[in-house]
Amino acid sequence: MYNFRTDLADERRDLYKKANKLDDSIDGIDVENKQINENIKITKVKVTNENGSVAIGKPIGNYITVDIKNIKIVDESEIEKSAEVVSNELKELIGAHVQSKEDILVVGLGNIYVTPDALGPKVVNDIEVTRHIIKYLPQYIDENARPVSAISPGVLGTTGIETVEIVEGIVEKTHPKLIIVIDSLASRSVERISKTIQIADTGIVPGAGVGNTRKEISEKSLGIPVIALGIPTVVESAVLVNDCLDLFIEKLQDEAKSNDYLNKLKEQDNYEEIKEALLPKEYNMIVTPKEIDDLIENMSKIVASRNKYGCINKMNRYLTIHFI
Amino acid sequence: MYNFRTDLADERRDLYKKANKLDDSIDGIDVENKQINENIKITKVKVTNENGSVAIGKPIGNYITVDIKNIKIVDESEIEKSAEVVSNELKELIGAHVQSKEDILVVGLGNIYVTPDALGPKVVNDIEVTRHIIKYLPQYIDENARPVSAISPGVLGTTGIETVEIVEGIVEKTHPKLIIVIDSLASRSVERISKTIQIADTGIVPGAGVGNTRKEISEKSLGIPVIALGIPTVVESAVLVNDCLDLFIEKLQDEAKSNDYLNKLKEQDNYEEIKEALLPKEYNMIVTPKEIDDLIENMSKIVASRNKYGCINKMNRYLTIHFI
Amino acid sequence: MYNFRTDLADERRDLYKKANKLDDSIDGIDVENKQINENIKITKVKVTNENGSVAIGKPIGNYITVDIKNIKIVDESEIEKSAEVVSNELKELIGAHVQSKEDILVVGLGNIYVTPDALGPKVVNDIEVTRHIIKYLPQYIDENARPVSAISPGVLGTTGIETVEIVEGIVEKTHPKLIIVIDSLASRSVERISKTIQIADTGIVPGAGVGNTRKEISEKSLGIPVIALGIPTVVESAVLVNDCLDLFIEKLQDEAKSNDYLNKLKEQDNYEEIKEALLPKEYNMIVTPKEIDDLIENMSKIVASRNKYGCINKMNRYLTIHFI
Amino acid sequence: MYNFRTDLADERRDLYKKANKLDDSIDGIDVENKQINENIKITKVKVTNENGSVAIGKPIGNYITVDIKNIKIVDESEIEKSAEVVSNELKELIGAHVQSKEDILVVGLGNIYVTPDALGPKVVNDIEVTRHIIKYLPQYIDENARPVSAISPGVLGTTGIETVEIVEGIVEKTHPKLIIVIDSLASRSVERISKTIQIADTGIVPGAGVGNTRKEISEKSLGIPVIALGIPTVVESAVLVNDCLDLFIEKLQDEAKSNDYLNKLKEQDNYEEIKEALLPKEYNMIVTPKEIDDLIENMSKIVASRNKYGCINKMNRYLTIHFI
Repeated sequence: MYNFRTDLADERRDLYKKANKLDDSIDGIDVENKQINENIKITKVKVTNENGSVAIGKPIGNYITVDIKNIKIVDESEIEKSAEVVSNELKELIGAHVQSKEDILVVGLGNIYVTPDALGPKVVNDIEVTRHIIKYLPQYIDENARPVSAISPGVLGTTGIETVEIVEGIVEKTHPKLIIVIDSLASRSVERISKTIQIADTGIVPGAGVGNTRKEISEKSLGIPVIALGIPTVVESAVLVNDCLDLFIEKLQDEAKSNDYLNKLKEQDNYEEIKEALLPKEYNMIVTPKEIDDLIENMSKIVASRNKYGCINKMNRYLTIHFI
Repeated sequence: MYNFRTDLADERRDLYKKANKLDDSIDGIDVENKQINENIKITKVKVTNENGSVAIGKPIGNYITVDIKNIKIVDESEIEKSAEVVSNELKELIGAHVQSKEDILVVGLGNIYVTPDALGPKVVNDIEVTRHIIKYLPQYIDENARPVSAISPGVLGTTGIETVEIVEGIVEKTHPKLIIVIDSLASRSVERISKTIQIADTGIVPGAGVGNTRKEISEKSLGIPVIALGIPTVVESAVLVNDCLDLFIEKLQDEAKSNDYLNKLKEQDNYEEIKEALLPKEYNMIVTPKEIDDLIENMSKIVASRNKYGCINKMNRYLTIHFI
Repeated sequence: MYNFRTDLADERRDLYKKANKLDDSIDGIDVENKQINENIKITKVKVTNENGSVAIGKPIGNYITVDIKNIKIVDESEIEKSAEVVSNELKELIGAHVQSKEDILVVGLGNIYVTPDALGPKVVNDIEVTRHIIKYLPQYIDENARPVSAISPGVLGTTGIETVEIVEGIVEKTHPKLIIVIDSLASRSVERISKTIQIADTGIVPGAGVGNTRKEISEKSLGIPVIALGIPTVVESAVLVNDCLDLFIEKLQDEAKSNDYLNKLKEQDNYEEIKEALLPKEYNMIVTPKEIDDLIENMSKIVASRNKYGCINKMNRYLTIHFI
Repeated sequence: MYNFRTDLADERRDLYKKANKLDDSIDGIDVENKQINENIKITKVKVTNENGSVAIGKPIGNYITVDIKNIKIVDESEIEKSAEVVSNELKELIGAHVQSKEDILVVGLGNIYVTPDALGPKVVNDIEVTRHIIKYLPQYIDENARPVSAISPGVLGTTGIETVEIVEGIVEKTHPKLIIVIDSLASRSVERISKTIQIADTGIVPGAGVGNTRKEISEKSLGIPVIALGIPTVVESAVLVNDCLDLFIEKLQDEAKSNDYLNKLKEQDNYEEIKEALLPKEYNMIVTPKEIDDLIENMSKIVASRNKYGCINKMNRYLTIHFI
């Protein structure tokens, strides 16, 4: 398989077409673009058959990318608009898999104590859960309310347990019909960091190259459809350097200071080689923008604010005390 | 059964003896007191047979209470000492139930976003988990290390799922041999708020009077021993008023301003009647001391600092990223 | 002077009238009530002359109280409405003292690390300051923008400096024309805790009875008008017990279990005596509702959201880095 | 002046010697190195006269650099050791400027709500202030205690006021004899990020090249000596790319794939050119390591834990409430 170094279905399609010098569309891959306003853009890729799946190395399913410019500094109204866009896409994808009253489990991956990894837990805290109300106090809730539950299982490093094991256990006890996983991601491009929300109904399949043993969180492992909503919040130094090297050589070219070798460097993807160079000196850090606190805050608002399926108020979080 | 209005085994024994005008010890109940230093005191109650169990209305098992004076303002060395005391008691109780290399799951109950309820999640964050290291990277860990995992499952109000269901699911997937539950509690006495740590190996059995439907977290429901470590961080107004009313009447008595009725009031427990009086005007709030942030911080240090069973560093919490 | 045990001008007026058996209005005191909707109520008291000032023991000036029912559990739209009400009252009071382009300094009192005391610092963080933009980058801001600056000076216990000294120093350097002080307060009534916002243009004058030496933050000490916006977030045990004792005796009266002495107890204010009774056993704690995190969050939104005088975005908080 | 692109006096001396092909020491510059243990190293540079000052472009004074390897993952004992080292250096420098009972003001620069910028405010929160105890309750404090006060003035973007104006105002009101400024810094080298603590008694003089108008915080502006303690927590993309480019070309050289132009690139400092290339596409972000939360936590412990000049407990932070 072609080494794409991007997980975005859209970018993979473009790379595949370029590599194979195709002008037309690829059999098994439908693409649709929508410009919502000057700051918000949606790209939808549908992998419809095995041929498309093999071409771009992604399972059959739906891949939606929402790009938001300048998310770090947007105002409340732009956050509202983005939340609405994300919510609509999410609702449509949910509707494609489950009926309106079927049970959903929201899983917020990540570590609440590591700012760039805290998106999942933060969103889960803002989700209005309804499963317990429907079960114990149905008189207090609209009869059309969908049972929603939500959990932040933590990360392997703080729990000692594979996340998928925790989720499997909960699924077996509570029998949801669909899972929505929310996660902070590492970006493979500077462009995308803190600008992109990716929604896919094929779950989370850890990249083959990363060398960790985490099992996938997907329909295959859990038996029910898994929608993954991911937002890149960190980037490796090697990615940053690779992206920036191109810009730097471009500048040298503009100034006629480049040469054949540099031109060739720019053509190819030097990520792996840069990574190899940085590793021995521990320069291949994972970094995040300085404004990460506001970024996570804004993204959390975008993902959580319109995804409130219930009609209960926050008071219920104080229901559960017991006595010494 | 006598209405004890305290969960502390020690206090129940005293009340039982008083009510039954007993001078000697009760069959089936052993008590031991240790004064560690001028600020720290331990009380150990062992319920050894059915007679003891019936007398004080608690299951057969061990009940340890550690009292720390002035926990709000203690300095680091006193926190260290308290941590050592709690750790020793906890280790002894663990040793009574499982072998040194058997698997332990730590469960931090509570809501990280509600300060007086955040103790459990905070402690879990400081536990050094080892289960995944032993499983995936055994070469990096002492061969005698015990597998420890830890989870903060959240509360019913934010997850929509009974905590015991989540824990059951995880137990079935990961097969620990012992569970340690850490929880913030509501106190039934002003005395105890932010002063007492209670450790028992009989799990958490929600009080019958509270009227909620939460299932117990105990060996009965989970099939493995459950040690519960609880710290009172909140108190009902009615408890506060009941306790303070006694002091107030005492003062009136001292000043010879009391009367028969007041004297009788002081003799009896007016908690239920006070609660009934406060409820209609919503005066029966759950309150917590103003210094709750420092209190939780100190208690979290006491519980977490000596309970590190492993030898791994914090780096492992950054192991788990994946890519977009 | 009559011992009012309330700082609310409105309640003092009622007590004064009752004590002096007055039916009519008091010379020097004007009162106005407005019910905004079923949850929000405004009371405005104007002390217009020395007679009114002496009667209720408050300086000549304006005293506005906004009462919001159920602030702990209100939804976003009610928060929006409350914010608008508070903002309008605040604007009117500001307009009575300074011109539209005159410089305002916002001072957030309190300690960001003590949840019930964090309101001031939290609000200051959300204020959009403009002074530096007008000074250094006037081209980026509307020419009618008012210079606003804001500071959280901390508390005596964490700075070692009287707050008024810090504010005086800043006033002398930056020459604002008006100060707005925002503060969490101790409530003298359970009713008011987390329900009331008090706005006055007479500054903050620490209560004579509290026995601390803090100097007042007022026009007298600073030479410019000081508007104080205060929200009760904590309460003393003695206040709670005093208020609850009345309810309890009322219940006993209803049940015909009361007696002359209790009836008399209910008539009088027992706060001082209760406090005296509680102090020796350290029962006179300062407590706060368990839901304090959400309460502060909601109040902070109410106070901050409509008081944005500027037009700058949050980006400017990242402008100031320097290099090693 | 030579364009050093480093503020570290030690590195500037090396660069100056290299540029001027000097083998011996420079007149006016004394250097001393100490390796404390395998992880901790101290470098002390003393600029003693005008010649030394001109040579490396730094004011006459003391410059101490403490390097700590692997600060992100160090354990508690290493943090303790580092705290001791920093504390000793700081004490020595303080002793060189003021008597043992003279008044010190600690100023924590930065924004508590922006994680990589929160070091200053976090440290200030842990400083044990004594000034108010000595002033109001001298009986509760050792008679040799030094008056210490501390403030987190915020940043220009959230206050609208130049930090130096706030500090000037406080200095004029409280008359300290020495100021200690604590700040997060931007690093000019990947090597140093989260590894280096820099202490200098020449205050903070914002770099000429940064183009902001902030006035310096120094003896010149404030009239009393200013010790600055700075820790790099963020880095510009351009710095990262410049540092990494060298490593990358080195690798190409090793593989005999380099050429004259690349060799030359490696020789020179390409920071400015890289920055120019990145700016148009907004790739010149300020980034911080993913582990920034732990990093700030550890650094805050190192700086605060041994710098407690007083003997008071934390209780005093609850002294200051007043009533509504």
